[in-house]
Amino acid sequence: MTPFDVERVLAELTLEEKASLTSGSDFWHTQPVERVGVPALMVTDGPHGLRKQATSSDHLGIGDSVPATCFPTAAALGSSWDVALVRRVGEALGRETRVNDVGVLLGPGVNIKRTPLCGRNFEYVSEDPVVAGEIGVALVDGIQSQGVGTSLKHFAANNQETDRLRVSADVDERTLREIYLPAFERVVTRAQPWTVMCAYNKINGTYASQDPWLLTTLLRDEWGFEGMVVSDWGAVHDRVAALAAGLDLQMPAAGTRPDDEVVAAVRAGTLDEAVLDQAVRRVLHLVARALPALGSGETFDAEAHHALAREAAAAGSVLLRNEPVEGSPLLPLDGTDGLLVVGEFARTPRYQGAGSSQVHPTRLDDALTALRAAAGADVPFEAGFTIEGGPEGDDDALLAAAVDAARTARTVVLFLGLPAPDESEGYDRPRLGLPDNQVTALAALAAVNPRIVVVLANGSAVDLPWRAHAPAILETWLGGQAGGSAVADLLTGAVSPSGRLTETIPLRLQDTPAFGNFPGEAGHVRYGEGVLVGYRWYDTRDLDVAYPFGHGLTYTSFAYDDVVAHVNGAGQDVTVDVRVTVTNTGTRAGAEVVQVYVRDPQASVLRPVRELAAFTKVALAAGERREVAFTLTARDLAYWHPGLRRWVVEGGEFVVEVGASSRDVRGEVHVDVVGEPLWGELTEMSTIAEWLAHPVGAALAGPYLALPEGAPEPDDSMQAMIQQMPIKVLLDFGFAPLTREDLDALVAAANA
Amino acid sequence: MTPFDVERVLAELTLEEKASLTSGSDFWHTQPVERVGVPALMVTDGPHGLRKQATSSDHLGIGDSVPATCFPTAAALGSSWDVALVRRVGEALGRETRVNDVGVLLGPGVNIKRTPLCGRNFEYVSEDPVVAGEIGVALVDGIQSQGVGTSLKHFAANNQETDRLRVSADVDERTLREIYLPAFERVVTRAQPWTVMCAYNKINGTYASQDPWLLTTLLRDEWGFEGMVVSDWGAVHDRVAALAAGLDLQMPAAGTRPDDEVVAAVRAGTLDEAVLDQAVRRVLHLVARALPALGSGETFDAEAHHALAREAAAAGSVLLRNEPVEGSPLLPLDGTDGLLVVGEFARTPRYQGAGSSQVHPTRLDDALTALRAAAGADVPFEAGFTIEGGPEGDDDALLAAAVDAARTARTVVLFLGLPAPDESEGYDRPRLGLPDNQVTALAALAAVNPRIVVVLANGSAVDLPWRAHAPAILETWLGGQAGGSAVADLLTGAVSPSGRLTETIPLRLQDTPAFGNFPGEAGHVRYGEGVLVGYRWYDTRDLDVAYPFGHGLTYTSFAYDDVVAHVNGAGQDVTVDVRVTVTNTGTRAGAEVVQVYVRDPQASVLRPVRELAAFTKVALAAGERREVAFTLTARDLAYWHPGLRRWVVEGGEFVVEVGASSRDVRGEVHVDVVGEPLWGELTEMSTIAEWLAHPVGAALAGPYLALPEGAPEPDDSMQAMIQQMPIKVLLDFGFAPLTREDLDALVAAANA
Repeated sequence: MTPFDVERVLAELTLEEKASLTSGSDFWHTQPVERVGVPALMVTDGPHGLRKQATSSDHLGIGDSVPATCFPTAAALGSSWDVALVRRVGEALGRETRVNDVGVLLGPGVNIKRTPLCGRNFEYVSEDPVVAGEIGVALVDGIQSQGVGTSLKHFAANNQETDRLRVSADVDERTLREIYLPAFERVVTRAQPWTVMCAYNKINGTYASQDPWLLTTLLRDEWGFEGMVVSDWGAVHDRVAALAAGLDLQMPAAGTRPDDEVVAAVRAGTLDEAVLDQAVRRVLHLVARALPALGSGETFDAEAHHALAREAAAAGSVLLRNEPVEGSPLLPLDGTDGLLVVGEFARTPRYQGAGSSQVHPTRLDDALTALRAAAGADVPFEAGFTIEGGPEGDDDALLAAAVDAARTARTVVLFLGLPAPDESEGYDRPRLGLPDNQVTALAALAAVNPRIVVVLANGSAVDLPWRAHAPAILETWLGGQAGGSAVADLLTGAVSPSGRLTETIPLRLQDTPAFGNFPGEAGHVRYGEGVLVGYRWYDTRDLDVAYPFGHGLTYTSFAYDDVVAHVNGAGQDVTVDVRVTVTNTGTRAGAEVVQVYVRDPQASVLRPVRELAAFTKVALAAGERREVAFTLTARDLAYWHPGLRRWVVEGGEFVVEVGASSRDVRGEVHVDVVGEPLWGELTEMSTIAEWLAHPVGAALAGPYLALPEGAPEPDDSMQAMIQQMPIKVLLDFGFAPLTREDLDALVAAANA
Repeated sequence: MTPFDVERVLAELTLEEKASLTSGSDFWHTQPVERVGVPALMVTDGPHGLRKQATSSDHLGIGDSVPATCFPTAAALGSSWDVALVRRVGEALGRETRVNDVGVLLGPGVNIKRTPLCGRNFEYVSEDPVVAGEIGVALVDGIQSQGVGTSLKHFAANNQETDRLRVSADVDERTLREIYLPAFERVVTRAQPWTVMCAYNKINGTYASQDPWLLTTLLRDEWGFEGMVVSDWGAVHDRVAALAAGLDLQMPAAGTRPDDEVVAAVRAGTLDEAVLDQAVRRVLHLVARALPALGSGETFDAEAHHALAREAAAAGSVLLRNEPVEGSPLLPLDGTDGLLVVGEFARTPRYQGAGSSQVHPTRLDDALTALRAAAGADVPFEAGFTIEGGPEGDDDALLAAAVDAARTARTVVLFLGLPAPDESEGYDRPRLGLPDNQVTALAALAAVNPRIVVVLANGSAVDLPWRAHAPAILETWLGGQAGGSAVADLLTGAVSPSGRLTETIPLRLQDTPAFGNFPGEAGHVRYGEGVLVGYRWYDTRDLDVAYPFGHGLTYTSFAYDDVVAHVNGAGQDVTVDVRVTVTNTGTRAGAEVVQVYVRDPQASVLRPVRELAAFTKVALAAGERREVAFTLTARDLAYWHPGLRRWVVEGGEFVVEVGASSRDVRGEVHVDVVGEPLWGELTEMSTIAEWLAHPVGAALAGPYLALPEGAPEPDDSMQAMIQQMPIKVLLDFGFAPLTREDLDALVAAANA
């Protein structure tokens, strides 16, 4: 389709037409203006597959859709830590979008996993903003390389489903800047998504859809976003406020807030028509930008995409545990003789989550069929339990049969997971653990056979109090339509596991950072843990975990040698070159995810004990070694100064750690960094200590700080107390020969 | 002295005189107006003794003062859980105040111990508001019974010393209402302190000294406070704003904010003169109220007060541990033969904290002298270490001598504690633990003698990673001038320990609730743990602790029988009668602190797993049994509803627990409570679930919630998602046959 000249069209539009262009024409289309040659543009849900609805019979938009490849969910994709692979997935997603004549795929989602109980975590990447951001960049680059757009979502601080259309995420700016915004920032500045989708929720009391700081100051002015802002479906509550804040397109079609309100506001002068024009311009730009790629009549190679989905599912599965039994680990399987498969999930896979991201897959692999194909034999199967936890009689009979079969099996592969209703858009998880009937089944099987491999399917962390019963545990997350085949590839050793945890697996719900502050009360959720999210919490509080962030086993082993770090420059221009040599010390090929963390033990604010700064995935043949290099920037060392309201590099010692997880650091280098001055303005409320630390203030204030004649020499406690006093207290307490005029002059001179 | 007629005086005052009365005349006196017969009234620091400065040479006011009885600090007094005893201490404090011609003793402090690192915790009572409130009531009643006033402080949310003159305690209303305010509320409503002292800090960005909600709406309008509000010394930054907010008296004498500003504001019409008059009226009332008791020339019985201080110090010491060694516990000591006393604190006691509460004691007992007196013999002593942790040579020699002596001793009593500079007003503690040299000393002694009794002196919890080395641990807090004798009384068994922990002793700093949110950054401290303070945190998160809230051993044992609870009434009128029979099952007399906790497992907000509702201390002879009764009120079951902004009793099951600590519950009763309706107003943003739960809204909304024709039946996930949607989304999504007008009518009808 041929694009049009945006400015020409804009000039021709009536006020009513312009207003109409800032809301959808239906659930999935922008408003066409045929009179001036502007067609409707279709957008559809993502993010891990195209969900293009054939009809609009279902107004909530969760009904049937055209077949499309269901790639692994973000939880699984992210666990690959493989940006090249994820970019290829993005390219495939973009192609499917394009050939279906859809202009924008509504994804990716890069919200931070604040709690494992968030029902939509499977659509998100990580508890860490660097991982979420890097995966997000790869997806956006890949999709947009096909000439169609993305929608980076849900901007911002949408970290729960409970009360999501109303709740205010009450979170301080430093926490926003360091935890909840950087993944968005990284994707916007590096990949320029065509659209950003605002979240449903409020941030500190203001709806994201109506927040000028969020949608304009931060997104456009600071980060340089050039695209269009679309609302999450139904997120707009005040149409005019939203436009004024920088929200360009309300979706879906206007309901409670019709276009008339926009027209009326412009006529009444309460909305500047230039603001409306800018929104319309962005909508038109989006349509014009998408048109060239659409209507080509192309198709996509469903088999190739399925194969890619299989590769990605394998790469995103995490081998959590692989303890030796009778002298050797259970995985990879030493053949399929005597193998018993147990668990309904082996033949009825859980491979995606409920809600707007539900894809109608082009095909669906189950692990049982795949294992039988790999074995070339009829591997026996027992359901063992019902997924929905049926009447006890059912489960008892299923389990009894499975236990009988397990007695004589050489190895049992047990497929466990969360029932679909436990994880969905629209509400949060009811529990952290697996259903009781599954845990019971594992215990019963373990009692008769110690060789148990557990394969997990769930969209976010589950607790694993039962893990002593399972010498091997493979976490597959929700692996998409080819997940079943990928599991077979991994179990048999055809593919070596290479995924790593992008979220900590805690021991208990009570240990999780948001416990007690989730899901909030009376419309507010307090982000009380601040920047201590994910491993930042567990590591700083030194809490035991089941498996740490970054953890994942392979079928080989890796050594880290020669970790070096060199500092160049200072302050905002500092960089740190980091190098390490990684060697595959085992007998099989494999891939290592090399993680670089930064510690800042001398900061004047509380910092997490370590924060991921960079990572890379290295595939190495047995015995192969390779040097890996990273360049950390000032931003990787900086924190957001809540007083100065900017990123600062505070001088002092930093520690660069290189390792295989947040708790498996293989080498560290202490470096000294020259920071920048952190003085703020001096006022009468600045403390004595602050005056004395200031290069100008110290000399000025000094004369007033002499002890009054005859006063006793202050002891250490008194000195410490005085240091913390605002200088004005000298006057309030008559403690110094200081007048009101002296004090005013002092402040003026210090800041001159 | 003869009081004057307040209204007559007020009518005669000039504007300038009135303004002058709203600030001090110097550090410790109100402004006199001799022309109309108003004298200056002296106020002095407390709270655990009178600190009346003889001269004003020291403008910070921490210099020398007249001798007065140094009673145990609040930390120790509170640990007695004995309101009758504390009231007697209050009476003694009041008498000393009166006979020194002081009108107001500046205390008690009932701020909640949010973190053990707060440098001023020794001046506060508890991590629990019921304990803090009850002890506060007893002190105020006792002091004011002598015709002088108190100053309930520091109002409010002054829970740290770091940056205390500027920091904003950022804390939600529910947390304020349930944790940080109730102790103040209890004292104000039950004991009417003559004055309340506002805190230095801000609450949610507003200085306490200038907060009309805090000083007027809450304190006077809701709680009915009838007295005068005085500023903490130097807490006023905007004199006019403070007066307008309800701050009557700025102390000390006006410095940066002179009286002229008040005069000018009245003249300019920016301050209503009636507001000034009201403040002046309250200052005059205070002076007039205090005068009759002063100038009598009486004295006080220093010996009797010392004896009371000794009794209180013993009652407030907590026997944390008393494990058997060679078959029997070390305490009480089985004689003094072979006893070795180690530790500088035995002869150089730490008995109070630094800062404004420092009392010049009438005499000072040390434990070594007291033990020798009790033994009637020269009990050997070794310093073992230096308190200030001197050069290693010093400490090494001291320790070597102590270890030598310990080899042949039968039992070692080791006095450990925090050095004075670790705990002070004006700054917070640098660490949770004892100094390394003391821990080293304990380990060395334990290596040669397993019979070690540790006696601790510290103003707030220290961690006890070394406790395996000490079969017996007696925590004496800062016990005042007679603390040394009290220790001897307890060790020898002359007195039986009866104190209980008013604060949890955690295992590690990382486990404490405020960790990561203390002491804040850039002028803000986030109360991120919300209502989960103290045992509410440890119990709800199910964290191991060293010793739980309420814990304390005795030299006897107690049984709890026949725990019963009966509910009367419903909603705001509900009461619960609780009874239990307590029996002294040991062979010695002793006192038990019976604690009643409430659990509310069915609340629709997150509640701590248990909260203290009531307690009483029962002294029982060996074998004696007594029934103890409590009446819980609606408030004891209620929580502060953050949406409705009032206390609510939500119906459902409650559990009444009776026990000897928060983790030693001896009996529980499940009761059903009929609650009150919790519906709020229905709006277009009320969810489908909220409409359907509303008695009127359900019927009105029902017709619009039918499925559109042809739409697929929603599955469970979809149903759950829909329940959480605001009703307006029906219209936004075109999901129901609903118009804008229908929706408006629906809302109007539901609330009609």
